Amino acid sequence: MKTAVIRKAHFNAAHRLHNDDWSAEKNKDVFGKCNNPNYHGHNYDLEVKVVGEVNPDTGYVMDMKILKQFIKSEVTEIYDHKNLNLDVPDFKTTIPTAENIARAIYERLRVHITAPLELKIKLYETSRNFVEYPA
Amino acid sequence: MKTAVIRKAHFNAAHRLHNDDWSAEKNKDVFGKCNNPNYHGHNYDLEVKVVGEVNPDTGYVMDMKILKQFIKSEVTEIYDHKNLNLDVPDFKTTIPTAENIARAIYERLRVHITAPLELKIKLYETSRNFVEYPA
Amino acid sequence: MKTAVIRKAHFNAAHRLHNDDWSAEKNKDVFGKCNNPNYHGHNYDLEVKVVGEVNPDTGYVMDMKILKQFIKSEVTEIYDHKNLNLDVPDFKTTIPTAENIARAIYERLRVHITAPLELKIKLYETSRNFVEYPA
Amino acid sequence: MKTAVIRKAHFNAAHRLHNDDWSAEKNKDVFGKCNNPNYHGHNYDLEVKVVGEVNPDTGYVMDMKILKQFIKSEVTEIYDHKNLNLDVPDFKTTIPTAENIARAIYERLRVHITAPLELKIKLYETSRNFVEYPA
Amino acid sequence: MKTAVIRKAHFNAAHRLHNDDWSAEKNKDVFGKCNNPNYHGHNYDLEVKVVGEVNPDTGYVMDMKILKQFIKSEVTEIYDHKNLNLDVPDFKTTIPTAENIARAIYERLRVHITAPLELKIKLYETSRNFVEYPA
Amino acid sequence: MKTAVIRKAHFNAAHRLHNDDWSAEKNKDVFGKCNNPNYHGHNYDLEVKVVGEVNPDTGYVMDMKILKQFIKSEVTEIYDHKNLNLDVPDFKTTIPTAENIARAIYERLRVHITAPLELKIKLYETSRNFVEYPA
Repeated sequence: MKTAVIRKAHFNAAHRLHNDDWSAEKNKDVFGKCNNPNYHGHNYDLEVKVVGEVNPDTGYVMDMKILKQFIKSEVTEIYDHKNLNLDVPDFKTTIPTAENIARAIYERLRVHITAPLELKIKLYETSRNFVEYPA
Repeated sequence: MKTAVIRKAHFNAAHRLHNDDWSAEKNKDVFGKCNNPNYHGHNYDLEVKVVGEVNPDTGYVMDMKILKQFIKSEVTEIYDHKNLNLDVPDFKTTIPTAENIARAIYERLRVHITAPLELKIKLYETSRNFVEYPA
Repeated sequence: MKTAVIRKAHFNAAHRLHNDDWSAEKNKDVFGKCNNPNYHGHNYDLEVKVVGEVNPDTGYVMDMKILKQFIKSEVTEIYDHKNLNLDVPDFKTTIPTAENIARAIYERLRVHITAPLELKIKLYETSRNFVEYPA
Repeated sequence: MKTAVIRKAHFNAAHRLHNDDWSAEKNKDVFGKCNNPNYHGHNYDLEVKVVGEVNPDTGYVMDMKILKQFIKSEVTEIYDHKNLNLDVPDFKTTIPTAENIARAIYERLRVHITAPLELKIKLYETSRNFVEYPA
Repeated sequence: MKTAVIRKAHFNAAHRLHNDDWSAEKNKDVFGKCNNPNYHGHNYDLEVKVVGEVNPDTGYVMDMKILKQFIKSEVTEIYDHKNLNLDVPDFKTTIPTAENIARAIYERLRVHITAPLELKIKLYETSRNFVEYPA
Repeated sequence: MKTAVIRKAHFNAAHRLHNDDWSAEKNKDVFGKCNNPNYHGHNYDLEVKVVGEVNPDTGYVMDMKILKQFIKSEVTEIYDHKNLNLDVPDFKTTIPTAENIARAIYERLRVHITAPLELKIKLYETSRNFVEYPA
């Protein structure tokens, strides 16, 4: 049976939900106050889960110090204290919903954390709304 | 790969664990202090998870504003500040354990959140005891 | 300068807010859904703070094992899994609002934790509503 | 002895720390990544504390339903899902640090919650940084 | 569909990560500050999940009072306020990483909680690092 | 009126409560399982509060980046992943109870955070036991 290790991190960012292919009215209708043209923001809490076999020499699935470093260089240094729409290339043509942010983080980390390790992302946009990818 | 979105809610309610087919002694023996005939109560914390594909136009699995409204009309308006045994029809013949409350909430929401979307309920009875349905 | 030590505990109870001197209409108007005649309930989280000098021999303001025992015998054994209105003598003629529950707990513990020690009670009725006595 | 009642609320907002009287270099030096011209954001958690005497007829220091309504009309409807610098008049000439946001909320609520009631604001900018006003 | 019930517990312990087959240099290199020869420690938070069918007579997957007792006798009485390396036989030849502690707890409880019930362990070493077994 | 700013930090450490002037029996009697000669440990959560006037140019009581640096150099680099009794000079002749650890942290930080600023320390030894200095 495999074991999972999970590491938490966090970043603060501004964003706006807006589909460039839609009218202002439709954007307002679908996204409501999340469509504010001046942006709003969140403290995002991130959990990165890695699933694999425990190495009997270390007792580790993966060295958490290395996982922590990947999260820092690939996610928090790029997303933290940023405007996701304006400052982060991942969202030039993708709407920065929690669902899409989680997938973008997955793809960034999947470059480093490869099979047979499994990777899962949980992202809290607020303490009441959060997402998981893959489900 | 699918994505999950989770929305939290809460309600406060009184309840009592009691099997009408058993003697008072057996009820006391099985349910202990949860069998108090004058009821006790909890702050129930609820997490509703919906799993599906992300709509590329909205970046949403499901509009959380709609999910929030379903939770309000189907769960919190019916369960909040109520006596589950006396005031809620779901528990006229079903013992309101956390397991059974979670299943009742699932069935109420499943009417609105249908396949191919998947639905999962997590219900905290206290910060130390909680349940998931389906597991 | 003095030091404070704080110990947490919790209990689950049913209650109803109702003033026997008022009409049903006035009770409903003032207390709203908290007036439900069939009761509702909460997971109460309690913090007991004791302020005093640190004993140089023990490094303690007060032995937390003793404080824990006082909380158990004076509060949780009497309030937990109970109907505060029906089962607890403290609320025979006092409305079990969070404010009044906090004061009742203070008075119960003040018998054992006496001057020059100071005593303060914080009581969470929900994660969004809580009280402190004395303020 | 007086009793305190505390009500929690929350809002999500974008902001930027910037002193218009300073050069870009000095702003960057003092405020660091909080000076990002494209803004960043937070989930602000707010605790409003009201201190007073308990009314013996209600068992309340203040009806929490009324306090909840004041917080909604004076704070969350004005701050939530907004850019504090651009959308909220309180910060036209005041830098929206946590300290200044807490004082602005105090002044908004103090109009409604007057002496002899005391009012205190606690504002979490992140789970690691928060402020209290008055201290 | 099956239902899961989860019970939380906690214990405090000292530990040290060290592989007896390695040199002091390699241990320091791999385990870093977790290799401190004088030990460090944690508040471990434990979640035990049991998955099965709900008994229609009780509304329970498993009586949580019995699960609580198993956790007490098999885990917390043996691990709490102990040095995992020196005081607990499970780690005489196994490095007490979070991964290995979770598996040891699983094996201790699996003796009592047998198929067709499923058993899962989640163990928080800190609020930022945690593991699940089986994943 | 003054404003308070609070910064959280954390460290993990082993410790043992033992008074060298007492017999083994008296130590065991007073400190119970906290007297384990092989040590146990905790995840300590620390809150450092600084009270003062808000600087109108910055909107800050104190730059949190500077406060964060003081906490790192004076507390977490010295206490984290250590055995408080063996590795930290503050507890060579002082019993490392939560009360005494809080005072030691206060004295370390008071060198840098001086009057007219006020300084207060809150230290969580577990999620159920914590202390404040000065009270």
